[in-house]
Amino acid sequence: MRSITAGDDSDSQVDASQVIGKAATVEHRFEPTHYHRTFGSHEPVLRVRPGDTIVTTTADAGGFDARGERVADPGNPLTGPFFVEGAEPGDALIVRVDRVTPSRPHGFTRTSIAAHVVDAADVPRLPAAERVDWAVDVARGLARLETGAAALPVIEVPLRPMLGCIGVAPALRQAISTATSGPYGGNMDYRGVEPGVTLQFPVFEPGALLFVGDGHAVQGEGEIVGTGVEISMDVTVTVDLAKVRPLRWPRGETADHLFTLGNARPLDQALQHATSELLRWLEAGYGLDAGVASHLLGQCVEYDIGNVFDPAYTVACKLAKRFLPAPR
Amino acid sequence: MRSITAGDDSDSQVDASQVIGKAATVEHRFEPTHYHRTFGSHEPVLRVRPGDTIVTTTADAGGFDARGERVADPGNPLTGPFFVEGAEPGDALIVRVDRVTPSRPHGFTRTSIAAHVVDAADVPRLPAAERVDWAVDVARGLARLETGAAALPVIEVPLRPMLGCIGVAPALRQAISTATSGPYGGNMDYRGVEPGVTLQFPVFEPGALLFVGDGHAVQGEGEIVGTGVEISMDVTVTVDLAKVRPLRWPRGETADHLFTLGNARPLDQALQHATSELLRWLEAGYGLDAGVASHLLGQCVEYDIGNVFDPAYTVACKLAKRFLPAPR
Amino acid sequence: MRSITAGDDSDSQVDASQVIGKAATVEHRFEPTHYHRTFGSHEPVLRVRPGDTIVTTTADAGGFDARGERVADPGNPLTGPFFVEGAEPGDALIVRVDRVTPSRPHGFTRTSIAAHVVDAADVPRLPAAERVDWAVDVARGLARLETGAAALPVIEVPLRPMLGCIGVAPALRQAISTATSGPYGGNMDYRGVEPGVTLQFPVFEPGALLFVGDGHAVQGEGEIVGTGVEISMDVTVTVDLAKVRPLRWPRGETADHLFTLGNARPLDQALQHATSELLRWLEAGYGLDAGVASHLLGQCVEYDIGNVFDPAYTVACKLAKRFLPAPR
Amino acid sequence: MRSITAGDDSDSQVDASQVIGKAATVEHRFEPTHYHRTFGSHEPVLRVRPGDTIVTTTADAGGFDARGERVADPGNPLTGPFFVEGAEPGDALIVRVDRVTPSRPHGFTRTSIAAHVVDAADVPRLPAAERVDWAVDVARGLARLETGAAALPVIEVPLRPMLGCIGVAPALRQAISTATSGPYGGNMDYRGVEPGVTLQFPVFEPGALLFVGDGHAVQGEGEIVGTGVEISMDVTVTVDLAKVRPLRWPRGETADHLFTLGNARPLDQALQHATSELLRWLEAGYGLDAGVASHLLGQCVEYDIGNVFDPAYTVACKLAKRFLPAPR
Repeated sequence: MRSITAGDDSDSQVDASQVIGKAATVEHRFEPTHYHRTFGSHEPVLRVRPGDTIVTTTADAGGFDARGERVADPGNPLTGPFFVEGAEPGDALIVRVDRVTPSRPHGFTRTSIAAHVVDAADVPRLPAAERVDWAVDVARGLARLETGAAALPVIEVPLRPMLGCIGVAPALRQAISTATSGPYGGNMDYRGVEPGVTLQFPVFEPGALLFVGDGHAVQGEGEIVGTGVEISMDVTVTVDLAKVRPLRWPRGETADHLFTLGNARPLDQALQHATSELLRWLEAGYGLDAGVASHLLGQCVEYDIGNVFDPAYTVACKLAKRFLPAPR
Repeated sequence: MRSITAGDDSDSQVDASQVIGKAATVEHRFEPTHYHRTFGSHEPVLRVRPGDTIVTTTADAGGFDARGERVADPGNPLTGPFFVEGAEPGDALIVRVDRVTPSRPHGFTRTSIAAHVVDAADVPRLPAAERVDWAVDVARGLARLETGAAALPVIEVPLRPMLGCIGVAPALRQAISTATSGPYGGNMDYRGVEPGVTLQFPVFEPGALLFVGDGHAVQGEGEIVGTGVEISMDVTVTVDLAKVRPLRWPRGETADHLFTLGNARPLDQALQHATSELLRWLEAGYGLDAGVASHLLGQCVEYDIGNVFDPAYTVACKLAKRFLPAPR
Repeated sequence: MRSITAGDDSDSQVDASQVIGKAATVEHRFEPTHYHRTFGSHEPVLRVRPGDTIVTTTADAGGFDARGERVADPGNPLTGPFFVEGAEPGDALIVRVDRVTPSRPHGFTRTSIAAHVVDAADVPRLPAAERVDWAVDVARGLARLETGAAALPVIEVPLRPMLGCIGVAPALRQAISTATSGPYGGNMDYRGVEPGVTLQFPVFEPGALLFVGDGHAVQGEGEIVGTGVEISMDVTVTVDLAKVRPLRWPRGETADHLFTLGNARPLDQALQHATSELLRWLEAGYGLDAGVASHLLGQCVEYDIGNVFDPAYTVACKLAKRFLPAPR
Repeated sequence: MRSITAGDDSDSQVDASQVIGKAATVEHRFEPTHYHRTFGSHEPVLRVRPGDTIVTTTADAGGFDARGERVADPGNPLTGPFFVEGAEPGDALIVRVDRVTPSRPHGFTRTSIAAHVVDAADVPRLPAAERVDWAVDVARGLARLETGAAALPVIEVPLRPMLGCIGVAPALRQAISTATSGPYGGNMDYRGVEPGVTLQFPVFEPGALLFVGDGHAVQGEGEIVGTGVEISMDVTVTVDLAKVRPLRWPRGETADHLFTLGNARPLDQALQHATSELLRWLEAGYGLDAGVASHLLGQCVEYDIGNVFDPAYTVACKLAKRFLPAPR
């Protein structure tokens, strides 16, 4: 672990209660030397303050870094955890995703649509699982696969880099596999975890303990083949805190939308979690009563599917901010 | 029932095998005098030929027409069925939706998010179901609700007119309630059933027997309050046939996308049906093998939720046409 | 259709309001000449009165009768419907199952566990679907399959004859395939539909319109291969009415237990329907408040699975009668 | 932690490879001094050898011991973990449940059927959650609740003591809340975890790390109120090892039946896991091919529901041993 902290050293004199989410401008560079296979209360690799920025890297889902060298065991190795000073259970950790950029020119996918994403009767004719490599051209913004098939020799898809894994330490000092997700975030494989989004996570442990990993250069909705274009990433996030803001599920905000994330099986339950969380947000955050919130969501809500591949599926419940009054 | 058929009378001389999907220009005007509460093998109200256009109207989900008069029992009364000459089991009925326009200046919704769309623990605090009226201004393209709530006195939503119910007679001479959906279409409440879309339905009975109804001036994704802005509609559709094209689920095409519709509970199974159907379409319609189709869908697929309110939920599985070769 | 009515002709003098469930002793013999593939408001084959007994036969699921001759199309052909005089929507039709006896010495099953009953990853190694015949020995009470496999050359299972299909005409004059089930009963494949049970069905149409079919000489719980030992049956049932007893789902009673049947997917929802119906029964039928009913069910409830094969799954929610006070 | 080891000390001379499951007669008495809220790779409290017996106690789900004193935080505190010498990943840990006896004369339940176990529309009328105490009379074998309700003043239920929680350390050094379950066992709330059963668990970590807790004096199927009659227990188990026997899910055996346990949501998936595991057992353990196993399970399988309350539901898939050949 090498951690280099830049910025105004005088901030150590500032009362923490004043700087939450406001003035901090410290940028930390952190290069991981070990990785985690679980979201859990592991030893922090770096301590940061609300408002600080973390510039770091992630290995790909198979454990390979920007040079294509194996640096971790496969299975979504995580960078972190980052301890955020002042974060206490019951707070919300705020994570602005500033940058998610592929750090090498190739990524991999696996062939087959997952057996549990098609009709059971269609399972026998699914293709064998096979790993293939895509060329990833950040400058041109394209991922390209040469298929060798006459009917479609080349698949070329615009890049949309995102993080499949992001979250904090779960409650009860649990340690939960990076294969799945829960109220703490985790392996949600939601395409909305991309530069420009600001996420909120419920804090369960002191310091929140933020993890990131599992970058995808691009990914179809639902991650139905079990991979996006898996690739190592350069990642920059800026953290902040909202004190005493009880969330039950991750939330997020883009320029245009609010959204909430529910993680569960079946998909119905993930959708229920996300819808309930957005309803609570409209009530507590915007002063809407349940009736008005019902009318508004009823005619304006949108849903995205994060993944239907992992043990817990992910659904995003979204509302365009143009329909809302100012937050309270 | 009054049916007025316009157009070139000479088409009665034409060999039916030649006109499929090509030269027909007949426009039928049909004003319903009775409605159906089931998709079934009911007596046709009009017989049309492939290529013909039907100009008709639908009552709202509560059975009220353009003048606000009750003309049918509540519960998604259907206009139809329309018998399409030459349609046989195993064919696909093609329905281009030309026009769906609200035919009066008000629609209704019900208040509450459905109990089964939120966490079970949140059900007790849902608002009481209450019917409210929205002003619908077709010229300005807006639906407007005055809520009486200080925090959000007015909700104003851009119109996006659609049909909640569309489909054909089910297999086995079943008659199935307009509350639900299946391989024959039905009450899918999919926002993509809007002007410009071209739908395909599997044909189970001679003549296919097309029904339409349940217009929404606008509707949130999932129809989570159990209603869109329910309203009577002026509807125009143009029908056609594809012979011997076995579909298992409804399909559709817009300017940019192919999509398939799966109807089932839980949502997972609706998604499986839709994904399997799109996979079959790519294989049979575009000559892709399952491996290439897997790669393509894996990184490019999109999903929409039709409804999570009805007994069968609806999921659309979509693919942008720009990734595809020419259809075979 | 041949219908022979035996019994005391003088019952035609009796006031119908007095005989409900009491004195009737008429026995009708009915031999079907046609069969139905849907539960629907079809033309009655016989009209009976509350208290009457119907002695009839059913073809097997493939449409073969006691002589092994094809008499109907495959897919659970139904005997009926029987019109019960005085049955009105809102009543409960009471059906005592007196006799279900295999009427020939052989039945068939299909080989493979259904793809949707095992993990998706195990689907490719399921055996091919293959029809096999079992010897059915009613005198010895055994079904016997010679497998030809060294490890287990013979499977011999005690008979437990039951009806896979039983129910009434659905609401809204729907006609619903014998492949599935709903509030009206249907293809529930519940092993508890056997001699000695008394079932109750909600009445949706005048006369209730009772159907029976799909006999199994024996069946595993869940009908996971999609068949029991499919066989033609001699069936005797005695019908009765309870006026103005609103049921939402079928109910039943054995010597020892009350039970309710919920039909839906996923299995969770079938269980919810059944549990809610038993809760309502305890409240309205036994005067328990929801708190006491909760305590009782919480520590004493039992569940059976009807089927996990059909489009709607079936769950029975059961309570031993020894824990209950006298019904009101 | 006080551990007293009784038995023949000479067993320390015996080659471990010989004693697996055979000669060991050591009985360890272990009284817990701390408890765990997660199944995880925690520090063992006792090391035992295959064949050894462990005599211990468990606190109730609320953290109260035999004297009614709080000894642990609420939420299914676990006794253990017990390290079994020689257990390696890929083995099966065998646990014979010798004794589960309530250690005090009272237990508690909570009132209400869980909101997610009834129809969503019925949730608002469920009773408020309330804790009540039952008298538990081990000598008479009865649990008794005085309800105060005229319609049913007393509920008296035969005892059927069981352990709600039993399992080993999960894979990947995860630590998973005692609220849920998985391939490692956990909070399965299966009534079959009672004296006389022999369980098998997949081993993920050296020593297996066995935990027990959450005793119920009696429990309804499904644990639909979220509790059995929660009580402290005297527990005796005897452990053993089967080397290199890859299980994916817990298995068990009684005098009459084999069973497997699947843990997941929805219930459908728990049933799939359990059915697949039993199919694998019949193939690898009894030499049946998939076709014969299909025939046998198709007509003879039985299912129990463990719980439909916890985040993961539990289903047992069972087969009577009388239908089986000798194990290989």
